[in-house]
Amino acid sequence: MIVAAFQFRPQFRERRDNLARIEGALRDVDADLAVFPELATTGYFFRSVEDIAALAETVEGETCSMLRDIAVAKRMTIVCGFAESARGNVFNSAALVTPAGELSVYRKVHLFGEEKRLFTPGDTGFFVVNTGDARVGVMICYDWRFPEAARSLALKGAQVICHPSALVAEPRLWKPVMRTRSFENRVVSVTADRTGSEKQGETMLVFHGSSQIVDVNGDVLAEADETFEGWVRAVVDPSRADVKTFSPWNDIFADRRPEMYTL
Amino acid sequence: MIVAAFQFRPQFRERRDNLARIEGALRDVDADLAVFPELATTGYFFRSVEDIAALAETVEGETCSMLRDIAVAKRMTIVCGFAESARGNVFNSAALVTPAGELSVYRKVHLFGEEKRLFTPGDTGFFVVNTGDARVGVMICYDWRFPEAARSLALKGAQVICHPSALVAEPRLWKPVMRTRSFENRVVSVTADRTGSEKQGETMLVFHGSSQIVDVNGDVLAEADETFEGWVRAVVDPSRADVKTFSPWNDIFADRRPEMYTL
Repeated sequence: MIVAAFQFRPQFRERRDNLARIEGALRDVDADLAVFPELATTGYFFRSVEDIAALAETVEGETCSMLRDIAVAKRMTIVCGFAESARGNVFNSAALVTPAGELSVYRKVHLFGEEKRLFTPGDTGFFVVNTGDARVGVMICYDWRFPEAARSLALKGAQVICHPSALVAEPRLWKPVMRTRSFENRVVSVTADRTGSEKQGETMLVFHGSSQIVDVNGDVLAEADETFEGWVRAVVDPSRADVKTFSPWNDIFADRRPEMYTL
Repeated sequence: MIVAAFQFRPQFRERRDNLARIEGALRDVDADLAVFPELATTGYFFRSVEDIAALAETVEGETCSMLRDIAVAKRMTIVCGFAESARGNVFNSAALVTPAGELSVYRKVHLFGEEKRLFTPGDTGFFVVNTGDARVGVMICYDWRFPEAARSLALKGAQVICHPSALVAEPRLWKPVMRTRSFENRVVSVTADRTGSEKQGETMLVFHGSSQIVDVNGDVLAEADETFEGWVRAVVDPSRADVKTFSPWNDIFADRRPEMYTL
């Protein structure tokens, strides 16, 4: 299957423009799984709950409807970060839509920085969806720093981990760690990171792009530089993620001894 | 404090020679914590239970006695891999001796390859010892592949993780992962890997050395090449491992949400 990450510079607060760009990118791409960055429809650096709430959408909103329409029309799976409004809460979420038009929403478990003022901590947990092409899980941005995020997805059967991001951490830090996440779980990972910068008052956030697709053995299959805008794509075989053995003696999942682990 | 890893080529089955080499190395070194490889006293590539059992020692044996004597005499902490005999079992163990002469034994949790035929799986779990200089934990070799090993030690308060090893995995695989282990837990890690090779029948195991000491931020402080024999040393500040925050908003331990994790 072909997996793809779309790296771009969302326009702050310009949800309609961003949606049009996402839709155009999806119309252009040839892929079975397409991943967009964190908060791809709104931009990232909000500082008041009211501002982000005004742009947040329910799963019945324009963003999820558009994603579902294209996923069905093009027979693809799409994962896209958006600000989700639900029962009076705002979540930092990612929609996952399958070719059958089935929608799931992952709500970010580990909130970063001032997100803690804006968003409700995710309550969906880590889950896996069988899209027909692969068993797919989602984690968002700062979840990279916690080995338990990718581990939980892999233990639940994920073959491909989609990782919508707006990373302010330097690529020299997070890129090898995401390679470790793939390697230690034998899963494909697709990090779709945004580029550009956003300024509020004296504070400037710079997003470092560097989106990457990593194979089950930790090899980088495709990557972007810090400022590239467009698609990063790779052919992957998700069934390789089902093989957790690397010798006649060892299986990295069967060898686990959870009774010895501190949670 | 000064932490040090001794990389060398243990002589297969030559326990007395290996012990003499370890003792000589300890007499020479200026360090507060010294780490030796896995099965440093016996060599690694045993294929029968009888062979390894014949060389295994209890904690009352020559190896632990010598380590304790030097630890007390030189006011240092020593961690050294050895084959341990206990209640009819043989464990792939590491002794940890403090400057006060207190001995603890870690028994390898995750057995690699044919070790499964030779050793009883470790039953000590991951534990932390306050040596006076630092809170120290131990994991052995293949434990590197399981994020739960270093995580368990760090959650139990380890500031420094000692990692006696006889790695047949390529350094390009394990070295970045051990940097991730330090980074994701904000702990110092000291990998003391052996060098050389051992052949049994048609099978040759090559050990790739490349011992490294990694700081809490993932930076490599000192490292050896694949064939070097001798000490690798670095000055570290274990108290930095107590700071899990990296911004006013985020603390990598307080941000954990174990109720969302699959064990």
